[in-house]
Amino acid sequence: MNGAQAVIRTLVGGGVDVCFANPGTSEMHFVAALDEVPGMRAVLSLFEGVATGAADGYARMAGRPAATLLHLGPGLGNGIANLHNARRARTPLVNVVGDHALTHKRLDAPLESDIDALAGTVSGWVRRSLATSEVGADTADAIAAAAAGQVATLVLPADVSWSDGAAVGTVTGRRPASHVAPELVEDAAEVLGGSTVLFLGGDAVTEPGLRAAAQVAAGTGTRLLAETFPARMARGAGVPDVLKLPYPPQGARKQLDGVQHLVLVGAKEPVAFFGYPGMDGRLVPEGCTVHVLAAPEEDAVAVLQALAELAAPGATPQLAEARRPDLPTGALDIKAFAEVVGALLPERAIVVDEALTSGYFLPGATVGAPAHDWLTLTGGAIGQGLPAATGAAVACPDRPVISLQADGSAMYTIQALWTQAREDLDVTTIVCDNSAYAILADELENVGAASGGERAGKLLDLGGPSLDFVALATGMGVPASRATTAEELAAQFRTALAEPGPHLIDAVLPRG
Amino acid sequence: MNGAQAVIRTLVGGGVDVCFANPGTSEMHFVAALDEVPGMRAVLSLFEGVATGAADGYARMAGRPAATLLHLGPGLGNGIANLHNARRARTPLVNVVGDHALTHKRLDAPLESDIDALAGTVSGWVRRSLATSEVGADTADAIAAAAAGQVATLVLPADVSWSDGAAVGTVTGRRPASHVAPELVEDAAEVLGGSTVLFLGGDAVTEPGLRAAAQVAAGTGTRLLAETFPARMARGAGVPDVLKLPYPPQGARKQLDGVQHLVLVGAKEPVAFFGYPGMDGRLVPEGCTVHVLAAPEEDAVAVLQALAELAAPGATPQLAEARRPDLPTGALDIKAFAEVVGALLPERAIVVDEALTSGYFLPGATVGAPAHDWLTLTGGAIGQGLPAATGAAVACPDRPVISLQADGSAMYTIQALWTQAREDLDVTTIVCDNSAYAILADELENVGAASGGERAGKLLDLGGPSLDFVALATGMGVPASRATTAEELAAQFRTALAEPGPHLIDAVLPRG
Repeated sequence: MNGAQAVIRTLVGGGVDVCFANPGTSEMHFVAALDEVPGMRAVLSLFEGVATGAADGYARMAGRPAATLLHLGPGLGNGIANLHNARRARTPLVNVVGDHALTHKRLDAPLESDIDALAGTVSGWVRRSLATSEVGADTADAIAAAAAGQVATLVLPADVSWSDGAAVGTVTGRRPASHVAPELVEDAAEVLGGSTVLFLGGDAVTEPGLRAAAQVAAGTGTRLLAETFPARMARGAGVPDVLKLPYPPQGARKQLDGVQHLVLVGAKEPVAFFGYPGMDGRLVPEGCTVHVLAAPEEDAVAVLQALAELAAPGATPQLAEARRPDLPTGALDIKAFAEVVGALLPERAIVVDEALTSGYFLPGATVGAPAHDWLTLTGGAIGQGLPAATGAAVACPDRPVISLQADGSAMYTIQALWTQAREDLDVTTIVCDNSAYAILADELENVGAASGGERAGKLLDLGGPSLDFVALATGMGVPASRATTAEELAAQFRTALAEPGPHLIDAVLPRG
Repeated sequence: MNGAQAVIRTLVGGGVDVCFANPGTSEMHFVAALDEVPGMRAVLSLFEGVATGAADGYARMAGRPAATLLHLGPGLGNGIANLHNARRARTPLVNVVGDHALTHKRLDAPLESDIDALAGTVSGWVRRSLATSEVGADTADAIAAAAAGQVATLVLPADVSWSDGAAVGTVTGRRPASHVAPELVEDAAEVLGGSTVLFLGGDAVTEPGLRAAAQVAAGTGTRLLAETFPARMARGAGVPDVLKLPYPPQGARKQLDGVQHLVLVGAKEPVAFFGYPGMDGRLVPEGCTVHVLAAPEEDAVAVLQALAELAAPGATPQLAEARRPDLPTGALDIKAFAEVVGALLPERAIVVDEALTSGYFLPGATVGAPAHDWLTLTGGAIGQGLPAATGAAVACPDRPVISLQADGSAMYTIQALWTQAREDLDVTTIVCDNSAYAILADELENVGAASGGERAGKLLDLGGPSLDFVALATGMGVPASRATTAEELAAQFRTALAEPGPHLIDAVLPRG
C-alpha cells in the first residue's frame, strides 16, 4: 500500500469520507488512490477558497470533518480566508496540503514556500508527514486533532504519498466524556436574574442548548443573547428565539447596557468587530462581572441543562410561534427580500447567511418560519457563503440550502457555483445585488472618514460595469433569473425551491 | 496630516502612484485620503488575488512598484498566491496590509490573525508601523526595500492611519551603482565555447541583455538558454531568439546534456519544477561546473556587456528575422491557435502567457513577430495571467496586452475581467478552452500514477458543466465571443485588436 492509499483508507476509516479537492502535481498519487480505495467522495472545486469553505460548511452540518486536498503553499494561501472562518467557527477540518517530495525541498523549486508558516495561522494542529510507514498514523492523529474543533493541517510530501510500505492508521484519543463541574453551575445560579445575561455561542445555540437556556430565562428572568456570528444556530417555530448581539458596536452596547453579570456559555467575551476612533473595543459595560460557565471547547449543552435543572426546574421555555410574514408586493428592497424569504422558507432549511447589510430584516422575518439552521460568517472573511452552502448541501442532500449572499462578497468565491452545478446540489442562492460594498459605506462613516469624495466613493461602488449575476451563474451551469420586484422574487424563489439542483436569483435592490 | 495621508503622499513622492486595492473597514482612512492627496490612482479589484497579480504585472512593465491595499490577514491570504509569483519574479512591490487599530489587537476580534506569519512567506521586508509620527518614514523604507526587487509588506494599523501628526517620508538608501568585478568576467571568459551554456534570467533577458549574450554566442560558440519562466523576456523580430529551458525535466535534461560549464547570469541554477519517483530533481549534468556570473539581484546586463567586450569584441549577434506564420484554416487546435497569435501579434505587444499545455507552439509561431515582451508564470501559482495582464495594461496604456490563458487557471482569478472593463484596459484575452486541467493529466503520467480510473479522471476534467467563458466575461462587462475554427479565431482576434478596451475570445480546443 502506498502512502496516499493509506491516507485515504485512514480518513474513510475515521469517518472522513468527503474530500473537497483542488489537486496539483504533488497530489497526483492521492488522486490516483481515489480509484484504488473505496468510500471517499472527492468533490472538485475551481478555486481553493471554495474547497476550504465547503469543508467548513460540510462539517457545521454533518458534525464531523471533511478533508480538503490543496496544492502546496499557494494553494493553501488561496484557502486561508475560509480556513480562518473555519477556525473561528471551531469547525473540525482535516486540511491536507500536498508538498514537494522531501528530496525536492532543498532545491527551492519555483513553487517552494513556507507552508508551515501559512498553516500555523489557521490551524490548531500542524504536522508534516515524514515517512510513508507513519503516514497512516499521522492521518489518524489529524482526524483526532480535528475532532477537538479545529483545523488540523497534514502536510503530505509527494514521495511519502507515492512510496510503498504504508499502513492504515487508527484514530485514538477521542474526546473525553464531558464533565459538568457542579460548583461552576452553582456559582452561575447565584447571579441569575434580570440584570444578568447568558451569552450563548457554540453548542449553546443548538436546539437543546437554546431550550435549556430558555428554561433558565423563563424560571429566573435572566436575559439571553447569542454571539453575533454563530457557526450554526437553531431557529424558527418551536425553537427559542434568542437575539444575536448586534454587529454595530452602538447596538451591541445598548443591548448590554446595565448588565451586572455576563455569563459566557460556549461563547467568548464579546468585543467590537473593529476599533473606531475614540471608542473602546470592549463591549462589556464597566462594573459588569464576566463569568465563564462553559468555554467554547466545552459541552455547553450539558452545562445549560444542569443550570436549568438547578435554577429553573419545571419552568417552561418560551418558544417561537409558527408565523410567517405576508408575501410583499411592489418594489424590491431589503425588507421585501426578507419577507419573501420568511414567507417561503421551506421545512428543515439550512440558511447560509452572508447577506451583510441586506440582511437587516431577516431575523424578524424568519423567526416563525419552520425550524431551520442558520450558518453565519464567523470570522468576517467574506466569500464564505457560496462555498459553505456548497458544503452544507453535500452534507445534507435531503435538506434545502438557502444561500443569502451579498453581491460584493459573492465575487470572492463565485466559482462555488460550478461545483454546485457539477454535484447537482439543492442550493438556492439569492444575491443581494445593491451594486456596492454597502457595508464599507457605513464603515467609512463609522470610522469618521466619510469624505464624500469621488475617489473614495469609487472604491465602494460595484457599478460600472454592473455585475450580471445571471450571466455569471449560467456561465457555470447554474440556472439563474433576475428579480426586480417583490412578486418576481417570490415567484422565482418558489420555482427554485420546487426544482431540484442549484438555482441563483439576482435580487436587484436599491443601490447601497 | 493623518497617517493615511502621509502614507499616500510618501508613496506618490517615491514614484508609487498606482494602488491596486481591495479595502475593508481598517483601510477606510486610506480610502478617504485618496481624495485629500492628489496623484494616486486607485484601481479596485473584486478579489485580492487580482490586486496582487496586477501589482506584479504592473511593475514588470513599469519598472517601478505599484502598491496594493489589502484588508487584514484574510485579505492578505487571498493575495498570497500572486505575491508568491511576484517574489519569484523579483518584482518590486509595496504591499500595504491594513490591520486592526493597535488598541484593538489584544481583543482577538473575529478578523484577528497572524498577518506577520502570512507576510513573511512572500516578503523580503515586513514592518508593522507602530506610530503615526513614523508612518511616513516606514512607507519610505518600504519603497526602498521594494526597489531591491522584492515584496515589501507594510502593515498599517487603523489607528496609525487615522491619527494626526504624521509627516511625509523621503526614500533614501537607493541601490548602489552596479559594479562589475573584472575577475569574475575574466573567469567566465575562460570557459566560453561549445560545451558551455550561458543560462540567462532576470535582467539578462531584456533586449540589451540578450544582445550582449548573443554577441558572446556569436563570437565564441557558447550556447544560450533562458530560464523556463522569466518575469519578462524580450522577443520577436530584431531580438536574439533564445530558447527557454523546457518545463518537462526530460526536455530540460536533453538541452543540458553534455554541458561542461553552466554560467548563471541573472538566473538561479535550474531544477525540476517537481520531484518525480526515481528521478533526481537537479537538472545540471554530473561533472558540469556551475559558475555564478551574476546573481539574480545583480546587474546582469552590465556583466554581459563586459563579457561581450572582453570575449567577443565586434562579433555580430544573431537576431530573429521578421517572419510570421500563415494564417491557418480549418480546425482549431493548439498549433492553429499559436499560428493565429503569431500571424496577428501587433507591434509592441505585451504577451502574458499562462497558456500552459496549450502554449506549446507559441514560441516558434511568434519568434519573428514584431518585437514584444513576454511575461510568464514565475512562481507556478496559477491564476496569475488575467491579473498580470490587467496590471501590465495599467502600466502601458499605449501598448496592446495579449493575455493567453489556460481555462482552468483562468477560473482562479476570473474577477480580473471586471477590473479590465472598469478601467477600459486594452487587453485581449484568449482562453485556451480544452475543458480540462490538461497539465495534470500529463503530470499524472509523469509521476507514474496514471490509473485511468474514473474518479481520478473526474478531478482533472472541467466539463460537466462546461464553463461558458463568453457568459462569464460579458457578465463582468467584457465583450466576448467564441471561436471554434481557425478562421473564427483570426477574425475575432483581429476585431479585438482593432477595438480599444478589453475583449475575451473563448478558443474552443480539442479536449485536453
